[in-house]
Amino acid sequence: MSGAARDLTGELLARLRAERPRVHCITNAAAVAYTANVLLAAGCIPSMTVNPPEVPGFIHGASALLVNLGTLDPLRAEAIDVAIRIARTDGKPWALDPVFVERSPTRLGLARDLARRHPAVIRANRAELAALSGSDGGDAAARLLARESGAVVVRTGEVDFATDGTREVEVAGGHPLMALVTASGCAATALMAGFLAVETDRFLAAAACLAFVKAAAERAGATARGPGSFVPAYLDALYALDPQDFGDRIASP
Amino acid sequence: MSGAARDLTGELLARLRAERPRVHCITNAAAVAYTANVLLAAGCIPSMTVNPPEVPGFIHGASALLVNLGTLDPLRAEAIDVAIRIARTDGKPWALDPVFVERSPTRLGLARDLARRHPAVIRANRAELAALSGSDGGDAAARLLARESGAVVVRTGEVDFATDGTREVEVAGGHPLMALVTASGCAATALMAGFLAVETDRFLAAAACLAFVKAAAERAGATARGPGSFVPAYLDALYALDPQDFGDRIASP
Amino acid sequence: MSGAARDLTGELLARLRAERPRVHCITNAAAVAYTANVLLAAGCIPSMTVNPPEVPGFIHGASALLVNLGTLDPLRAEAIDVAIRIARTDGKPWALDPVFVERSPTRLGLARDLARRHPAVIRANRAELAALSGSDGGDAAARLLARESGAVVVRTGEVDFATDGTREVEVAGGHPLMALVTASGCAATALMAGFLAVETDRFLAAAACLAFVKAAAERAGATARGPGSFVPAYLDALYALDPQDFGDRIASP
Repeated sequence: MSGAARDLTGELLARLRAERPRVHCITNAAAVAYTANVLLAAGCIPSMTVNPPEVPGFIHGASALLVNLGTLDPLRAEAIDVAIRIARTDGKPWALDPVFVERSPTRLGLARDLARRHPAVIRANRAELAALSGSDGGDAAARLLARESGAVVVRTGEVDFATDGTREVEVAGGHPLMALVTASGCAATALMAGFLAVETDRFLAAAACLAFVKAAAERAGATARGPGSFVPAYLDALYALDPQDFGDRIASP
Repeated sequence: MSGAARDLTGELLARLRAERPRVHCITNAAAVAYTANVLLAAGCIPSMTVNPPEVPGFIHGASALLVNLGTLDPLRAEAIDVAIRIARTDGKPWALDPVFVERSPTRLGLARDLARRHPAVIRANRAELAALSGSDGGDAAARLLARESGAVVVRTGEVDFATDGTREVEVAGGHPLMALVTASGCAATALMAGFLAVETDRFLAAAACLAFVKAAAERAGATARGPGSFVPAYLDALYALDPQDFGDRIASP
Repeated sequence: MSGAARDLTGELLARLRAERPRVHCITNAAAVAYTANVLLAAGCIPSMTVNPPEVPGFIHGASALLVNLGTLDPLRAEAIDVAIRIARTDGKPWALDPVFVERSPTRLGLARDLARRHPAVIRANRAELAALSGSDGGDAAARLLARESGAVVVRTGEVDFATDGTREVEVAGGHPLMALVTASGCAATALMAGFLAVETDRFLAAAACLAFVKAAAERAGATARGPGSFVPAYLDALYALDPQDFGDRIASP
């Protein structure tokens, strides 16, 4: 699907920049500023409050929701519960990022509960996917979790993999420096929520977002001298990339 | 007032760098690090705790206070109450940033209460000012709010506007990339608190700060390739700008 | 000990990059993202949760712990208590950063309690060390605190000083722009926890870390145009510095 995918990524990116969707993010303390900057650079409008009484107003005004489980405290846990409830009532898509669930049984239990509350996308690395699905985190586990949860399951790594249980894609490229910047994956999941706001086929939204992120990381990596200079270069690339810039990075596995 | 204003901005900036005022900030999670870095680059000494029992000690040791309503949680709400009380008792100026009040009725209610507690400056964008004042957020609304609250009301945007209900200025310039960096406005309000610490005429302090921010944004925008490279360039400009660098950007509207 | 120290720094840095120790950080809101990025750039794997029920799992999976007292709230205070208890039971080293204790009696009281709970390292600037030790924060006070607490006491500044009560070193170099970047010291203490994870002689671990940080700051300062461009350059230097790059910066005082 490479030719079609290239067109798709460009088309959805153009739509994102035209519609400027509002994405409400409940995310961890290490990710909050960077996530907002990634969303702004790409063309979205972020909001970040985790205060439960304020969450309904922000969800009503947003088009999509990110739920990230990092630095989870009682306030965030309550905010997440409220946010998902309102998003579901409002019919707005939400993306789940079960960061570091392999490190804490408490967090893993919550992540499993949330996976049953109809996320549009679950984005994890292999270790997180393995913990979440009680498996090796491989392709078969991703497919099974997708069928059980109804979500598009995205496993990111050197080569990204996305599946809705039936369709699937691999997305190669990117740059190894991205893994040395904290919250890179967290911010990418937030961006995926942005793509969900402009494309109802959640599988296509996820695939396009992965291709966009990989292309931006490649461009940043071409000039970066380390993880420090990678950050501004990556944000600049998210801002400057053109629909024509994507290449054939999406392929059926 | 352009010639005088240029001199004023340079004079207050020189004073800021000489006095290095301590600014205590109660601000949102997305803004906390960037705000501290903006203050440090410009010549102030920031502190950022939101823990209520610690707040009195920090306010006693500071010269001005920032109160920003983003990512407002119960702890921050309590910290804000304590901080304003101590600042008022100590006779120290405080600046109010009612971020995103148009998105949450809870937050708007708090912002209106705080606007009655004698802030020296209220800094908002048009949507926030409109919500806060129950109006269109135009110049007349800013003037009225200034008279009612006793604060200098600053509305930032492509052209900034500041009024104390009698005097008023417009400040043009800046750069559109600044709007694509999260917490740019939040950090500018903190910097305004820094200027309030070195100049008792709050209207002049606000005007000088706006001119300084616009000049730094212009300088950063001249070399930035996107919002990523804008950030280090802006901090460098806040650090490096000379009293002679301001030009005639302040004008009576 | 300059020749030996240079070899030591290079050796421990090589070990750090090979072992990639996990460092769990309980740190302040202004420092969390930057600290994670400093650790990643240098070769460590950070985790940052402050949620008490999650802390045990993260400490079990980590090799060292950072406890930083900035933006201390009740949740962090509880997390710190849990984290130190587990780290001690697991036999893992922890580093204490008593940031801004001179500004708040509440915080100072807690810092003194924590100093008795067997930190491997206490890292402070002169004002913080003075408050913590009830002295002028000079070398004699550092030595005395080291003997009383059993920790290596590190006082950072233009010239860093480290002592375990018997041995001591000074480390010169670095760059003044580092003091204009928020959380520079906080992140350096986290990095020291990383060095503690790969070297059981805590004095040597602390000295090597100081030399590494000073060398990276020098390299960054050589190209930075202000505190904004210093940040990416510093992270790039932490990432790129070679064991051969250290020079004779460690000397007996």
